[in-house]
Amino acid sequence: MTGATHSPDAPRKSFGSDNHAGTHPTVMRAIVEANTGDAIAYGADPWTAHAVSEIRRLTGAQGEVYLVLNGSGANVLGLGLLLGRHESVICADSAHINTDECGSAERILGTKLLTVPARDGKITPELIGSRLAGRGDEHFAQPGAVAVTQSTEFGTCYSLDELRAIKEFCAANNLRVFLDGARLANAAAHLDCTLADIAENADVLSFGGTKNGAMGVEAVVVMRPGDAANAPYLRKQHMQLSSKMRFLGAQFSALLTDDLWRHNAEHANAMANRLAGGLASIPGVDVVYPVQADAVFARLDPARIAALQRDWIFHVWDESASVVRWMTAFDTQESDVDAFLGDIAAAAELVGSVRA
Amino acid sequence: MTGATHSPDAPRKSFGSDNHAGTHPTVMRAIVEANTGDAIAYGADPWTAHAVSEIRRLTGAQGEVYLVLNGSGANVLGLGLLLGRHESVICADSAHINTDECGSAERILGTKLLTVPARDGKITPELIGSRLAGRGDEHFAQPGAVAVTQSTEFGTCYSLDELRAIKEFCAANNLRVFLDGARLANAAAHLDCTLADIAENADVLSFGGTKNGAMGVEAVVVMRPGDAANAPYLRKQHMQLSSKMRFLGAQFSALLTDDLWRHNAEHANAMANRLAGGLASIPGVDVVYPVQADAVFARLDPARIAALQRDWIFHVWDESASVVRWMTAFDTQESDVDAFLGDIAAAAELVGSVRA
Amino acid sequence: MTGATHSPDAPRKSFGSDNHAGTHPTVMRAIVEANTGDAIAYGADPWTAHAVSEIRRLTGAQGEVYLVLNGSGANVLGLGLLLGRHESVICADSAHINTDECGSAERILGTKLLTVPARDGKITPELIGSRLAGRGDEHFAQPGAVAVTQSTEFGTCYSLDELRAIKEFCAANNLRVFLDGARLANAAAHLDCTLADIAENADVLSFGGTKNGAMGVEAVVVMRPGDAANAPYLRKQHMQLSSKMRFLGAQFSALLTDDLWRHNAEHANAMANRLAGGLASIPGVDVVYPVQADAVFARLDPARIAALQRDWIFHVWDESASVVRWMTAFDTQESDVDAFLGDIAAAAELVGSVRA
Amino acid sequence: MTGATHSPDAPRKSFGSDNHAGTHPTVMRAIVEANTGDAIAYGADPWTAHAVSEIRRLTGAQGEVYLVLNGSGANVLGLGLLLGRHESVICADSAHINTDECGSAERILGTKLLTVPARDGKITPELIGSRLAGRGDEHFAQPGAVAVTQSTEFGTCYSLDELRAIKEFCAANNLRVFLDGARLANAAAHLDCTLADIAENADVLSFGGTKNGAMGVEAVVVMRPGDAANAPYLRKQHMQLSSKMRFLGAQFSALLTDDLWRHNAEHANAMANRLAGGLASIPGVDVVYPVQADAVFARLDPARIAALQRDWIFHVWDESASVVRWMTAFDTQESDVDAFLGDIAAAAELVGSVRA
Repeated sequence: MTGATHSPDAPRKSFGSDNHAGTHPTVMRAIVEANTGDAIAYGADPWTAHAVSEIRRLTGAQGEVYLVLNGSGANVLGLGLLLGRHESVICADSAHINTDECGSAERILGTKLLTVPARDGKITPELIGSRLAGRGDEHFAQPGAVAVTQSTEFGTCYSLDELRAIKEFCAANNLRVFLDGARLANAAAHLDCTLADIAENADVLSFGGTKNGAMGVEAVVVMRPGDAANAPYLRKQHMQLSSKMRFLGAQFSALLTDDLWRHNAEHANAMANRLAGGLASIPGVDVVYPVQADAVFARLDPARIAALQRDWIFHVWDESASVVRWMTAFDTQESDVDAFLGDIAAAAELVGSVRA
Repeated sequence: MTGATHSPDAPRKSFGSDNHAGTHPTVMRAIVEANTGDAIAYGADPWTAHAVSEIRRLTGAQGEVYLVLNGSGANVLGLGLLLGRHESVICADSAHINTDECGSAERILGTKLLTVPARDGKITPELIGSRLAGRGDEHFAQPGAVAVTQSTEFGTCYSLDELRAIKEFCAANNLRVFLDGARLANAAAHLDCTLADIAENADVLSFGGTKNGAMGVEAVVVMRPGDAANAPYLRKQHMQLSSKMRFLGAQFSALLTDDLWRHNAEHANAMANRLAGGLASIPGVDVVYPVQADAVFARLDPARIAALQRDWIFHVWDESASVVRWMTAFDTQESDVDAFLGDIAAAAELVGSVRA
Repeated sequence: MTGATHSPDAPRKSFGSDNHAGTHPTVMRAIVEANTGDAIAYGADPWTAHAVSEIRRLTGAQGEVYLVLNGSGANVLGLGLLLGRHESVICADSAHINTDECGSAERILGTKLLTVPARDGKITPELIGSRLAGRGDEHFAQPGAVAVTQSTEFGTCYSLDELRAIKEFCAANNLRVFLDGARLANAAAHLDCTLADIAENADVLSFGGTKNGAMGVEAVVVMRPGDAANAPYLRKQHMQLSSKMRFLGAQFSALLTDDLWRHNAEHANAMANRLAGGLASIPGVDVVYPVQADAVFARLDPARIAALQRDWIFHVWDESASVVRWMTAFDTQESDVDAFLGDIAAAAELVGSVRA
Repeated sequence: MTGATHSPDAPRKSFGSDNHAGTHPTVMRAIVEANTGDAIAYGADPWTAHAVSEIRRLTGAQGEVYLVLNGSGANVLGLGLLLGRHESVICADSAHINTDECGSAERILGTKLLTVPARDGKITPELIGSRLAGRGDEHFAQPGAVAVTQSTEFGTCYSLDELRAIKEFCAANNLRVFLDGARLANAAAHLDCTLADIAENADVLSFGGTKNGAMGVEAVVVMRPGDAANAPYLRKQHMQLSSKMRFLGAQFSALLTDDLWRHNAEHANAMANRLAGGLASIPGVDVVYPVQADAVFARLDPARIAALQRDWIFHVWDESASVVRWMTAFDTQESDVDAFLGDIAAAAELVGSVRA
């Protein structure tokens, strides 16, 4: 992943990351409103209580919910709750925990990631099964959990049937399921389902607020009480316990009020779809994954990429394959997408004319 | 540390922790103002650039500055930059890394803490020297760094001479110095010195924003460039890299503008002094440590403590010794202190009359 | 611990360590005899099977027994079986895991050691109780296990009553007991009890072969089956699984045949007692701990220590207190002890005359 | 890897592992002879001194040599000397550290293994280059070292040119080279070169004694002094420091006297070659890797494998591909090979006739 060197004060909307967006105004308002008087630190405040209660209700969790500071923190804590000291994790080679967290899982948990090459970023029972050789043999790191990402790093979504098949395979094979939900809202929006419909297929999941319009908060959701005994301690050990927690609680409270989380996700998804739709009529741009969340991966001429990066911020995902990633966010406007589409089309012509 | 069970919506000012306070209005305003359009994630934004630049200027750091999410994150990252895989840390038994971080240093760094019983929370060359036996012997965890806390957990401050003596001793003994500056501002205010006056005695230090009026941000300051080579990677591995970093940068930018950090600290210190001053005329209350920052530790009758806790929030620090901790913050008012003093005096009479 | 710089080919018996002794001839013979043809690697051999079976019988273990390569390996594996990721260990400040293993427990397990100042090296329910503050508070590393050493680093032994009191206190306080039995045989010999009498007071224990006449082997004994689920994997991860395991099995088999382990321990203990007995009539030498195993700790004039170290190998245990450690072994002869006593007495006179 | 369930007292030579063999008689004699009187523990003995000195001479190492207890211990220590806390390791997916050590590298070092699919078990500059994307980006685990195995898990050997190319590529790309030499002797024998010829292409390497006829000892060889500063401490922390080290030293001393290490390796290699040669005339058995050390990997009918496993001990390496691994050792006799070949041929006929 290279690029995105564009000046941060560019007036044009970034298509570089849903993290380039700021904080949704309603969330920001909630933060400001929470700034009143004192509150007990470390989570014993009403904003956190409300957020936790709502997340439990929406996901159907019987266990506890732990607010943490960022996505890596959520992933490592969530996996840590499910893994014995000797256990490893089966995951897609494209999983965020494998590619984008600088080896946190190995470093903090001491665990091994057993990766599988997952088409469209989606793991399957067959792929999981391919890493189960050596169970019961002390020479092999023992698979203890499977990590799935919903929606995936490639902007695709597991169907509920696909998730259920994984869950059932794992239950039959003594594997627990961790679901990385940094973009869980986008998946629920795409599938038009509840959070609980997805969550019931996991033992522990994360639920991301940051990419959904929060300033910076994620939740670790424990579906069954038994898995959470050491969660408060691990959150603290992992340096993920916020002192002025009310400001995390307030963010989630705002997202969970009046379905703001869903509206934000629906909007971001719609903008990605609008972008993909527009690309269909531009020659020389191939969308390489189904567009089911807030990301569009496209292959196009390197010269065209270079031309576009002069004015727009986005990442080249795979330089050798000439594939870029374009992401939308809760605050992407239709006009942003249309302007971007215009420039993509123009870049095509420009490059074409230069080459002609 | 027990107690602080009081309802969080109590109208009375908490004396429980400088973390019970909210965010300073100027900091909050800066956060809101940073919420404009897109910004490159993970720190390549102008707010972070400004904060980092100011912290380098104020501390005299030649190395880099890394914003992180909380105090434990700052301590563990800071120590991690200074320690070889086989090295241990000499620190006061009262150090936050030893008593309040659920074993993060051992868990995340795999290091051993060699504790010394430090009067008033302050370590000395003599105490450091007492843990140097066994250097060069492979059976002993080798001391590699000394951790000092400024101001300390007990609300005391090292003088600049004391810090210099530690620094010189460490330099002569091939030890590096980490300074836990979660309340660095309070120390600079008390000593009426610059941040650089303190920082020059450390190899790496943390500089706390949260207890100084921020919503949640700390800085890890590397005094010399050589110690920072792996800092960006360790920050990420330690799950301390914020995606929407601009909101961390904005907090520090606000604190560092017009010396807000110093005014906040001076105010909190003054309130602690006002409290200690008032206690002098209340019989049966002994202040047990010099009051040099924003904390007052006092010994008083358990029945009186219980009576006070019905209306006020604070922690019993040492139940067996009947010692409490009373903390002030940037937003403690003179009237809060005076009302609290009134109740402390009244509780004395009440208990006295019950017993009589 | 300094010194022991004497030439290794010194003809005089070392009083430096029970590790300075070689391998008992019967154990060596068993090793040689095991060297016949092929054997399945990693423990599926008859020598290992016999050793494991005998250790289970002698200790009364219902769980499994795991042979490992050295004492640190046994301690870390044993503790690892009992600790959750977030748990810490209460132990004497003189415990081998705290002072002599270069921080293995912290490094390999990521655990924190909560030390107590234990008189004669023996922990008590009171001392354990002194470290239980903060249970249930996420800021504190949660005590999960207590480590006792039998016999201790100071050559003392817990009585069975003392062990039982610890066990009962731990059971009542939801703590598990790990017993470091690097010199377990010496304790059983001193107490004239079975291994099972001691072992029943632990959840997991180590049983040391090396200091008892083996070439290099220790056993980790799991008293109840439930604690051993991940033991084979952790042994491998901890790099403590021997490929040609038969040679470890053969060592223990020999020690456990015809009570060789007990005879070796009784003999070493008797030699330490002979030494201590002889010291009683030498002026200026104070034995500082009860002599209940194979070690004598004595305080004597530094000049006398220096004189003795010219001809004898032993460690100065505490230079500032002028205390030395003299250890016996299975192969220490009465004549070795008597010659050493003669020189100790002579050194006294020598130093005396020099000073006079 | 499954199977090898045959009774360990089978009279027939095992082809299951070079670890099924015992200790070479000359090594055993050296162990027995070292059992004379006392010796300083932990390596300050003449046997260890001699072994270390010889290994330095033979490998040309300017740094130190550390004897350890087994192969996993050597690999993890060796890698640990080369890796910063934030660095990862590029290795073949078939590397022992990846497949056979239960995740030790991840668990003990906290490092990430970046695997490449290596034909014949051999990594190349191209394969290494394929994992270098993301250097300098804090989100990616930074490659710091490359691990090569010589000879490989598949019984193949890198040529000296191949090793040199890797070394040069690594030097040009700021990567250090660790060489897993658990079967280094077999490679030197195959290449008819010195240990130094191989070692000069590594920064740190292991040199295996165990599979070469020792009872259990490996060496970690540091080629340049600077990489060894923390080695003694890490060896201890990793629980790889032997107390009665003389018995490790004696093993290597014997192997290094009169080139016993080379004769043992040449013999084992010759036996593997004899086996492979004989297979050439047996229909239905395909040797799948070049036979360059002490291993023969062959594909044959599953029914034939089953028939052979009734009388012979060996591992099915890849059940789905019907590939077995047959290993020789220093003590494999020509008659063992010929008898085995006879049964392989007979099994072919048997299965053939059953199927006909």
